Amino acid sequence: MVVNAMERIMIDLLYEYMTALQMTCTCEECLNDVLALVLNRVQPRYVTNPEKVAYVKAEFVDKQQMTTLIVNLAECAKMVSDMPRCENYVRGEK
Amino acid sequence: MVVNAMERIMIDLLYEYMTALQMTCTCEECLNDVLALVLNRVQPRYVTNPEKVAYVKAEFVDKQQMTTLIVNLAECAKMVSDMPRCENYVRGEK
Repeated sequence: MVVNAMERIMIDLLYEYMTALQMTCTCEECLNDVLALVLNRVQPRYVTNPEKVAYVKAEFVDKQQMTTLIVNLAECAKMVSDMPRCENYVRGEK
Repeated sequence: MVVNAMERIMIDLLYEYMTALQMTCTCEECLNDVLALVLNRVQPRYVTNPEKVAYVKAEFVDKQQMTTLIVNLAECAKMVSDMPRCENYVRGEK
């Protein structure tokens, strides 16, 4: 079993900055869209054991690196907010 | 729920080329080490639904792209084969 530590880190960041991101829609579908977008942008950090995620997380104590992640997250949240693809919004368009 | 389509693709490739890779050890731990290494090298392709993995897989019908994946896999398999970190081998060293 391998796991990308960035998944856990990005999910945590997303919930931490949820209010600040001011997303148009915060349904599960839209949040998943943001996560998929941002995880395709940042360097993956696969570990062979979920317990090792903490070691990767510790590296992001460095403020510059953490800021880069948050900037990426904010950009992806904006992309989804500008064009939400969830049921409600797509139906609303028609 | 988001999933990196490359995980599925790399697991399939690993099992397909297992014999050709001639690994020193094919225990679960060593195979996971290979997977983690190779998934950190290749561009992640996150999708929001496991069913969409097939669309990503279809892109790799292109021979050049598939060859790049296999070359990466072979290099990572060699790294783990040259220095296996599993229980048996680490214990054997002492």
